[in-house]
Amino acid sequence: MTPDNGVDPTVQQPDTPAKTTDQPRTLPPQVSRRGFILGAATAAAAAGTTGLAACGNINRTTEAADDDDPTQAFLADDIVPFDGVHQAGIDTPGQAHLNIIAFTLRAGTTIDDVRRLMTVWTEDARQLTRGHNPIGSLEPELATIPANLTITCGFGPRFFDIIGKTDQRPEWLKPIPVFSKDKLEDTWGEADLALQICCDDPLTLAFATRHMTRAGGKLLETRWMQQGFLNARGATDPGTTPRNLFGQKDGTVNPQSTAEYDDYVWIDENSSDPQWVRGGTCMVVRRIAMNLDTWEELDRTSREVAMGRYLESGAPLTGKEEFDTADFKAKDQFGLPVIDPRSHMALAAPPTDNPKEKMRRRAYNYLESHIPGSDHTTNVGLVFICFQQNPVTQFTAIQQRLNDNDRLNTWITHIGSAVFAVPPGTSEVGAGKDQYWGASLLES
Amino acid sequence: MTPDNGVDPTVQQPDTPAKTTDQPRTLPPQVSRRGFILGAATAAAAAGTTGLAACGNINRTTEAADDDDPTQAFLADDIVPFDGVHQAGIDTPGQAHLNIIAFTLRAGTTIDDVRRLMTVWTEDARQLTRGHNPIGSLEPELATIPANLTITCGFGPRFFDIIGKTDQRPEWLKPIPVFSKDKLEDTWGEADLALQICCDDPLTLAFATRHMTRAGGKLLETRWMQQGFLNARGATDPGTTPRNLFGQKDGTVNPQSTAEYDDYVWIDENSSDPQWVRGGTCMVVRRIAMNLDTWEELDRTSREVAMGRYLESGAPLTGKEEFDTADFKAKDQFGLPVIDPRSHMALAAPPTDNPKEKMRRRAYNYLESHIPGSDHTTNVGLVFICFQQNPVTQFTAIQQRLNDNDRLNTWITHIGSAVFAVPPGTSEVGAGKDQYWGASLLES
Repeated sequence: MTPDNGVDPTVQQPDTPAKTTDQPRTLPPQVSRRGFILGAATAAAAAGTTGLAACGNINRTTEAADDDDPTQAFLADDIVPFDGVHQAGIDTPGQAHLNIIAFTLRAGTTIDDVRRLMTVWTEDARQLTRGHNPIGSLEPELATIPANLTITCGFGPRFFDIIGKTDQRPEWLKPIPVFSKDKLEDTWGEADLALQICCDDPLTLAFATRHMTRAGGKLLETRWMQQGFLNARGATDPGTTPRNLFGQKDGTVNPQSTAEYDDYVWIDENSSDPQWVRGGTCMVVRRIAMNLDTWEELDRTSREVAMGRYLESGAPLTGKEEFDTADFKAKDQFGLPVIDPRSHMALAAPPTDNPKEKMRRRAYNYLESHIPGSDHTTNVGLVFICFQQNPVTQFTAIQQRLNDNDRLNTWITHIGSAVFAVPPGTSEVGAGKDQYWGASLLES
Repeated sequence: MTPDNGVDPTVQQPDTPAKTTDQPRTLPPQVSRRGFILGAATAAAAAGTTGLAACGNINRTTEAADDDDPTQAFLADDIVPFDGVHQAGIDTPGQAHLNIIAFTLRAGTTIDDVRRLMTVWTEDARQLTRGHNPIGSLEPELATIPANLTITCGFGPRFFDIIGKTDQRPEWLKPIPVFSKDKLEDTWGEADLALQICCDDPLTLAFATRHMTRAGGKLLETRWMQQGFLNARGATDPGTTPRNLFGQKDGTVNPQSTAEYDDYVWIDENSSDPQWVRGGTCMVVRRIAMNLDTWEELDRTSREVAMGRYLESGAPLTGKEEFDTADFKAKDQFGLPVIDPRSHMALAAPPTDNPKEKMRRRAYNYLESHIPGSDHTTNVGLVFICFQQNPVTQFTAIQQRLNDNDRLNTWITHIGSAVFAVPPGTSEVGAGKDQYWGASLLES
């Protein structure tokens, strides 16, 4: 195994009690990165090593003291810890680039094959995210810039048939019901395995994508790959909600605290789901095509009515700031609701009788290169990835309302859908945790 | 027109004599960005405003004093001046992302249509590169982060038939001869117009791509779009030669000085080319597929022999550092040449009797998203863009040698080819220069 030379030791202590990654990893959007760093430093000074390590996956912020010169290659030091209670890449703030790849396991694959695959993949992902060259790669130069690389693994419905453990398949792990407005293309459909690979550097991302695909060897066929982007690092202040290609801030209502993640993202010990998935989550991947041609015919006010928010600030139409609470009862001078009940925001909001109808959204924009025969000018949209405890009561419940009434439906179409069970995080030395993705499932 | 609020005034003086963009815009690769800034500051102190403005398109470096905190959105202040003697995006250091779009002009297009298109496009590109919202866009929020955006326009062979000025077509503006190893696909072929759009932020790039395409309105059909990437800003020290997906440093032999650009990139006053293109250049776009499956079967030594350079340093096999001069006569202990005469580097080097066989290379990596029916794992390669005075005596002469003997041909295949005449730079107020792209051609 490659030695850990050059890696910040504070992120390389998989077995100290301090490494509780169930501390918040996500920056509150209002807090600037510099502000957060100062806060973290203060907390660390008060609490000692524990305080610092408690920053978990956002340790990238704690390295700012070393990289306060933008002329230097600061992304080369930006490492998101791979091991932890939960997999990285879920509560990790969105990196600039996404490749999410779905695979089919070839006929004849056995549980032993899958165990070997997961052992190799997990170790390779661990090394890649540290900026180390994984075994079997002759490209060490392409592995040196981790740039907040995360690699997150999920298992599709058929995975459990292949490994002969259908009783271990979570009840919710099945295709999302087809909604009336869906125009699903098989091209972007269900698969046996998925790797969500995210990174702030596109070259590192390409290398990691290639390496992981190749490491799967003959067991795997690529079912699809979806690529996406947000703003580059350095383009916006950290914590800024990214915009989609409709110009809307996308992800304002995401969970911000550990408590919120525990409440509706991470599958907990009291869940009725199988033991192996506790600490994990459910990942839904929807491909949503956006029609810019017709969207651009709208004036700003109409766009804001459809969304229920101001475009510039992202504030609800009843508020001033992005994170203001929406007042769905407010009326305008004509007695009409200020926020249209059929606006995207109103319909996406959890009903008062089910406050857990929320998800961690991790959407990426796509603008595809030329595909022969297609009109590229409308080949844009959103790779909408969300994480939740149970898609039936979360994604599907929300999407049913959106499908039926969302004003945005005029300009968006769901064209792809896939669901994956995401195993919990790993520990490099095991010791009661999975040493590789799904170990407790595959060794049970 | 949008006012210039918030833009560094040193980059907004199109008519001061100081704005001689034939000063070097490209950082010598050995010089760190910080080192360059200090040098530029010293020069400016010595020379006054003239010294500072002479930095031309690399003014982004002069703003570092404002953005030495990576927690802030420094890319929002990074502006490459649009106007100048030459178009930006040619000697501009490679930004992280590329969309190069080729268009076909629809039947019935007149020279008046083209004149209007160029007027609108030039003004929109000028505004976008400043971080201003162009007229007709309702997305001001997507226009605020210029992130070194450049938009460079080129005219294809048929353009001159359409505008009825075939006598103004440069003699070299015709398809590159088909080489014996080419497997050209019409999908990536010749077109009437091209926009090379490059940016360090992928969202700004997507917006600019969409806006410019839409601004072309009904005159244009998209022929193809090619997307590419290099390392992100902040991933490597500025001036570092980027790597391709074979792990090789790509672009080591690029021109570094104004003299070199004048010598073989910019079409000069003594050229036999038409007057309108002087100060411009020729852009060749080749799509080069790379076979990673077979490349990865090679050991490191074989890869280095094929390239003629060490992978890690990029140095010639006879040297130690990337920019060491290659010694093609050096022999090893067996009397064999250290640098294989059939290596890529040996064949690409200009022959002693024709030292002008060089080009400005601006290659971008591609790794394409899933295309139904294709095997994505080999859908990678290089969008190879190069600029030169004359493709016949530069690109084609070099490529003929490479086609015939380059060892790299085992792993690479040219699948696309297009050539464009790139008009010179512009001035916002005209005054003896083109106010819009190709004005002196279209108004002659």
